[in-house]
Amino acid sequence: MNRILIINGPNLNLLGRREPDIYGKISMNDYMEALVADYPSIEIEYFQSNHEGDLIDTLHEAGFDENCLGIVLNAGAYTHTSLALGDAIRSIETPVVEVHISNVFSREEVRRHSFISDACKGVISGFGLDSYRLAIEAILAL
Amino acid sequence: MNRILIINGPNLNLLGRREPDIYGKISMNDYMEALVADYPSIEIEYFQSNHEGDLIDTLHEAGFDENCLGIVLNAGAYTHTSLALGDAIRSIETPVVEVHISNVFSREEVRRHSFISDACKGVISGFGLDSYRLAIEAILAL
Amino acid sequence: MNRILIINGPNLNLLGRREPDIYGKISMNDYMEALVADYPSIEIEYFQSNHEGDLIDTLHEAGFDENCLGIVLNAGAYTHTSLALGDAIRSIETPVVEVHISNVFSREEVRRHSFISDACKGVISGFGLDSYRLAIEAILAL
Amino acid sequence: MNRILIINGPNLNLLGRREPDIYGKISMNDYMEALVADYPSIEIEYFQSNHEGDLIDTLHEAGFDENCLGIVLNAGAYTHTSLALGDAIRSIETPVVEVHISNVFSREEVRRHSFISDACKGVISGFGLDSYRLAIEAILAL
Amino acid sequence: MNRILIINGPNLNLLGRREPDIYGKISMNDYMEALVADYPSIEIEYFQSNHEGDLIDTLHEAGFDENCLGIVLNAGAYTHTSLALGDAIRSIETPVVEVHISNVFSREEVRRHSFISDACKGVISGFGLDSYRLAIEAILAL
Amino acid sequence: MNRILIINGPNLNLLGRREPDIYGKISMNDYMEALVADYPSIEIEYFQSNHEGDLIDTLHEAGFDENCLGIVLNAGAYTHTSLALGDAIRSIETPVVEVHISNVFSREEVRRHSFISDACKGVISGFGLDSYRLAIEAILAL
Amino acid sequence: MNRILIINGPNLNLLGRREPDIYGKISMNDYMEALVADYPSIEIEYFQSNHEGDLIDTLHEAGFDENCLGIVLNAGAYTHTSLALGDAIRSIETPVVEVHISNVFSREEVRRHSFISDACKGVISGFGLDSYRLAIEAILAL
Amino acid sequence: MNRILIINGPNLNLLGRREPDIYGKISMNDYMEALVADYPSIEIEYFQSNHEGDLIDTLHEAGFDENCLGIVLNAGAYTHTSLALGDAIRSIETPVVEVHISNVFSREEVRRHSFISDACKGVISGFGLDSYRLAIEAILAL
Amino acid sequence: MNRILIINGPNLNLLGRREPDIYGKISMNDYMEALVADYPSIEIEYFQSNHEGDLIDTLHEAGFDENCLGIVLNAGAYTHTSLALGDAIRSIETPVVEVHISNVFSREEVRRHSFISDACKGVISGFGLDSYRLAIEAILAL
Amino acid sequence: MNRILIINGPNLNLLGRREPDIYGKISMNDYMEALVADYPSIEIEYFQSNHEGDLIDTLHEAGFDENCLGIVLNAGAYTHTSLALGDAIRSIETPVVEVHISNVFSREEVRRHSFISDACKGVISGFGLDSYRLAIEAILAL
Amino acid sequence: MNRILIINGPNLNLLGRREPDIYGKISMNDYMEALVADYPSIEIEYFQSNHEGDLIDTLHEAGFDENCLGIVLNAGAYTHTSLALGDAIRSIETPVVEVHISNVFSREEVRRHSFISDACKGVISGFGLDSYRLAIEAILAL
Amino acid sequence: MNRILIINGPNLNLLGRREPDIYGKISMNDYMEALVADYPSIEIEYFQSNHEGDLIDTLHEAGFDENCLGIVLNAGAYTHTSLALGDAIRSIETPVVEVHISNVFSREEVRRHSFISDACKGVISGFGLDSYRLAIEAILAL
Repeated sequence: MNRILIINGPNLNLLGRREPDIYGKISMNDYMEALVADYPSIEIEYFQSNHEGDLIDTLHEAGFDENCLGIVLNAGAYTHTSLALGDAIRSIETPVVEVHISNVFSREEVRRHSFISDACKGVISGFGLDSYRLAIEAILAL
Repeated sequence: MNRILIINGPNLNLLGRREPDIYGKISMNDYMEALVADYPSIEIEYFQSNHEGDLIDTLHEAGFDENCLGIVLNAGAYTHTSLALGDAIRSIETPVVEVHISNVFSREEVRRHSFISDACKGVISGFGLDSYRLAIEAILAL
Repeated sequence: MNRILIINGPNLNLLGRREPDIYGKISMNDYMEALVADYPSIEIEYFQSNHEGDLIDTLHEAGFDENCLGIVLNAGAYTHTSLALGDAIRSIETPVVEVHISNVFSREEVRRHSFISDACKGVISGFGLDSYRLAIEAILAL
Repeated sequence: MNRILIINGPNLNLLGRREPDIYGKISMNDYMEALVADYPSIEIEYFQSNHEGDLIDTLHEAGFDENCLGIVLNAGAYTHTSLALGDAIRSIETPVVEVHISNVFSREEVRRHSFISDACKGVISGFGLDSYRLAIEAILAL
Repeated sequence: MNRILIINGPNLNLLGRREPDIYGKISMNDYMEALVADYPSIEIEYFQSNHEGDLIDTLHEAGFDENCLGIVLNAGAYTHTSLALGDAIRSIETPVVEVHISNVFSREEVRRHSFISDACKGVISGFGLDSYRLAIEAILAL
Repeated sequence: MNRILIINGPNLNLLGRREPDIYGKISMNDYMEALVADYPSIEIEYFQSNHEGDLIDTLHEAGFDENCLGIVLNAGAYTHTSLALGDAIRSIETPVVEVHISNVFSREEVRRHSFISDACKGVISGFGLDSYRLAIEAILAL
Repeated sequence: MNRILIINGPNLNLLGRREPDIYGKISMNDYMEALVADYPSIEIEYFQSNHEGDLIDTLHEAGFDENCLGIVLNAGAYTHTSLALGDAIRSIETPVVEVHISNVFSREEVRRHSFISDACKGVISGFGLDSYRLAIEAILAL
Repeated sequence: MNRILIINGPNLNLLGRREPDIYGKISMNDYMEALVADYPSIEIEYFQSNHEGDLIDTLHEAGFDENCLGIVLNAGAYTHTSLALGDAIRSIETPVVEVHISNVFSREEVRRHSFISDACKGVISGFGLDSYRLAIEAILAL
Repeated sequence: MNRILIINGPNLNLLGRREPDIYGKISMNDYMEALVADYPSIEIEYFQSNHEGDLIDTLHEAGFDENCLGIVLNAGAYTHTSLALGDAIRSIETPVVEVHISNVFSREEVRRHSFISDACKGVISGFGLDSYRLAIEAILAL
Repeated sequence: MNRILIINGPNLNLLGRREPDIYGKISMNDYMEALVADYPSIEIEYFQSNHEGDLIDTLHEAGFDENCLGIVLNAGAYTHTSLALGDAIRSIETPVVEVHISNVFSREEVRRHSFISDACKGVISGFGLDSYRLAIEAILAL
Repeated sequence: MNRILIINGPNLNLLGRREPDIYGKISMNDYMEALVADYPSIEIEYFQSNHEGDLIDTLHEAGFDENCLGIVLNAGAYTHTSLALGDAIRSIETPVVEVHISNVFSREEVRRHSFISDACKGVISGFGLDSYRLAIEAILAL
Repeated sequence: MNRILIINGPNLNLLGRREPDIYGKISMNDYMEALVADYPSIEIEYFQSNHEGDLIDTLHEAGFDENCLGIVLNAGAYTHTSLALGDAIRSIETPVVEVHISNVFSREEVRRHSFISDACKGVISGFGLDSYRLAIEAILAL
């Protein structure tokens, strides 16, 4: 039982390319490489999609995998509009940790409500790409 | 003209597996088998997807099929967030009946508003899997 | 144990007389006669009142009658304003099915909230007078 | 640099077929043919999908294409429910013009709020299919 | 065809007795006597009840009476809470004029919304007991 | 003391010309002529303006005129947006009666709130042009 | 002057029978008997009805009875929906104390607003059947 | 086990001095003296502070004191703004009764919501200083 | 029939002078001159006022002019506060196109609601001064 | 550079005449005379209008006058309804101070929101006519 | 009678140190020194605390001091959250003037509502540290 | 520079004692001991208070201490009611991380809004006492 799945939602495929002076020049792939190296005993997988349905399908797949320790989910904008994602998390057995790169609470009103927070184990928000590492730490400590 | 299409939305593929003490151990496939047997003269089809776009595509396909008597739609969480599904129903010719397994009106606030009810012929909610059978009865009586 | 009580609320005594081009020319009495004939083994009773208190009294009476299989309730406008009716349903033992002739969800905002839905077993709305027959089917299947 | 991409969202594939007395009998394909003929020096492309994710993917593709002068986006119902589409537009470099065939401001309340307007260069709404031509004019004048 | 029915709702039986320095010392009965005398050719009837159901029953009775020119309705507090009264007015054929003794718009927030105004022919509010006479004038002018 | 001033607000100069199948073909001037003839002992004046400031100036002028029995005010759309008009009425001594030709309570939400009702003596709404005559009756009865 | 009237509203006739593990097995009649015994010098009367109009009629009767020290009112669900009850209390002379068996403030949102509290002398809520005895104490101390 | 603690919140130290024509000329100290005399077998203590933190500290101290029968809390304005006080009550073991001197439900909107009611055993509001005595009665009856 | 009227509302007389680094240094007069030159066969007129009443008067004048092809209206801040302007547009026969220089949907909340959009033929917003030219194009294509 | 302009909005021409027991018997003209005498080296001008457009025109005129130290604006009821006035203040260069004679924050809800406060340098409210003098002091200190 | 008390609330002890490019480098102590020098005949005192309770205690102390001409209160963030402070001001006899250094009306939504404004004599907001001097002027003019 | 300050707000002194089956039996002191042992090179301090003012004072002290790497703040219920705490965090230089033991987003509505999140570096919520350790990790990684 040593798998951890990181799921990224819409527009997060553009990290490193989109407004690099704000979000930095590190792409998610580069960051993932470093992260995998830091945890040699854990099998860290990465999945990204702009499709709400793909995110749900992937949650279902990993959500009943007995080898999966936990799921790190940055649902991007779907965080704030998708009740279906919240239901998907409530339906599965693997614990899910919600992460955000920026501090969503200091942004527009619409981003202050999350449809998935109350279905997740916990929330980590605002620490840049380091939010993902903290989420892995949180899963390992469960 | 003897086709009836049952469409299930997000997370409903997990029926029978998800929280079996609440939702029962009957999977949708097993239920469908029994339902088909009850209506030998009707061609009952079943479609499920977690993708909002797939649900719309399928509504479009059946919505102009002259053999289709009606569509039974359990849109799951998309019921409460998808204006596009409501528009799809308004755009087609086949009548649609909205169904819910649980009584959505006794759940959280967000589930009390439906984006599709006013586009449907009618609503049946709260009778467990039997909601589907009642919807078929309703279509046959139209 | 073979009694089913149908309760109609305010203004439903005018069915068949009020705007006949919309609601049809069939009065509730004529419809009841046909319905009773369809279910010879069930004792179907009908009660109508424009008085909120009468509806509550009648729910109390049937709600502890061990012969009563279920109650079909079309509370008319009280559906949307009477918390007391909701409490009455919560207080009794016989299951209650909420029905509406028209699709209340495609009407004015005030008719989209129901004070009784979350106390009922389920909801059937929008199938014309046939909504009553579907409710009886639902009760028989409980 | 002479490419302009027209993206249509959910249910817009039914133009010409859906309620022809309201929306006219001209399909989007026929209109596109005429539009392409009017602008021989511009490479006008057309893409339609009912899938929110496909719309985002397509925006990403064209959004960093240096040959693309601009994108004309009619997001249909997703206009009013998809924060992810708004984020996609904010993430890309190509300017986007929001268009609507009908005057969305004279319709239901839910259609009066747009999740994408503040990310777009501008909005053109209510001129029938001619809204698309005006959007191309707007892009050419940027 | 010369009947006009005046219907008063809850607590209006106390006129002349309740806070006489505010509402005056004239009881509704005394006022009715004078009013009847002013219109010898009209059969003016008066009905008061604190029961919502009685008001509906009475509206139904007069609402299909071909001799009835119109109904003057002061629904008191039910004006602001009874959708059923609004539905009753919408269901009948005789025109109804809504009246209020005090200016309801200068009172608490809850009294600024009326469930019956949009079902009535018109509204007369704030002229003391004279509001009833003006309503009769309005009915005679229809 | 025999002057009554009728003040009409924005767009009411178009009566008789605007949508004649709805509002009738009678212009305000024709109606005024008849009204003046009906009350030979009263000096009835008529003033119309599309300017909020003109309406306030006119209210101020007549509001301290000791010969003025009352003011009949149809503020048109300013009814629903002008706090300044409400303040003007509160500032003067002559009583003001608010009138509306159509039943404003059966129209859009925004027309259900009035900034002037609570400053007026009373409200008369929905009786067509006859609303003005009823308002004069109300003033004469004060 | 030694009469105290206890008025109970809708569904309170079911006390002792409805969900006895929650509300206890003591019926209101048994409780009343004990209460009457505790206050031999006071004439304690009890009235219950599910009809809003009956409650108003009864308030009117006792509200001008010079022998009546006070009224204890548990309006049940009408507490939260009946402006007419609030008006009735405002119209009478006898002081009224609002009581609730359960703590209404720890229940659903709709039960947190009372239409009668601001018309009553005071409120006592949450002490089980003992709330009635405390209300009598409060009336005796006035 | 015979201790009862009365806690008063902000501005209640001014009783008897502040607007004496409204609140009376009796200071809390004088009232306490009389109250203590009425219950010789109970050790009644009194604590007042304008500091939210002091109120919480005091609740914690008494909340685990096995000799304490109950706490009477008039949190003044903090009733309506302090979630922390509500949490403090939820955290302790001693039952707490919320009291108010005036009828808070007949005052401004902001005073109609209480952050502590749903954590308390019950609420007594509107009986002047006698509210405290009724609360002691309520605690003794628990 | 070749007249087009451009109407500008409050504060738009300051264009070119107000915050020139934001709005540019081109005054409306200079822009109009160029625009007139571009459409030699059209009689383009320009009117500006800070007075709501003047805007209404001008709409009335042009609204029944049979030579007028259409009206381009930038109502400035009145867009968001003037129901009377919306009524004026609804009252006239000439089609009106709503324009905005900046993208009003990316500004403060209050600017996201328009009282005139649903009365106009369509809306063009966000293309700088070029919005006016696009509106003329839209009118010519009607 | 020694000019200060005082602008008064709607209904403020009635000061001294309107409800003199509340607003005092001093007219604005008398107060201005005294004020001018207090500041001999400053050229204090006074302008009043009930027309929103006049207020905007006057702000534009003084707003680019290099001799003008500042503008004191009491916009009366337009404070709470006129976005156009707010825009006018944002468009000009001369600093504006918002004043109110009464304490607008202790009045009705609608008067608690100001459309101009965030465009002004500051706000002075509640000091009677002295609010104007304090505003002049504030301008002189800038 | 020559004492004026200036009370500053939470975080105002950091003036001069916190974000000096915005708030300036002048500390409150330095400003107070200059202010005291400007009014030699007035005894100006200064009190600051981050504790809501301390602010209330201090208001109580000065609020009944017959030597105190008035209180200048900058309650900082407590302005927007403390009903208890508002009650404290309502309870005392000395007049209180509310001041703010920045223009609170041009900041976030939450800062646009004040719990103390309607209890104060008046409000002065937005003139930097000079707001305090204007408040003293206002008190001296009372 | 090796100091990290952990600040706990109201009611958190009861950890380990309050509802131990929910919150566990570990007191904050025991947890702190273990935490200090885990980070020997960091000087971890702990401060708890039920007083909002104390929390602000402590933030001010540590907020300008150059040895302080960061502050971990669990403001308890003040998170949801204290704008002053948010201002305190905005005023200081040391970064602050907001933590919660339980998942505040799955609790009551009032706990879903935080007055401090947008002032903090980031948020960690829902991981039990381990939330504190994750916050220290986050600070060390800044």
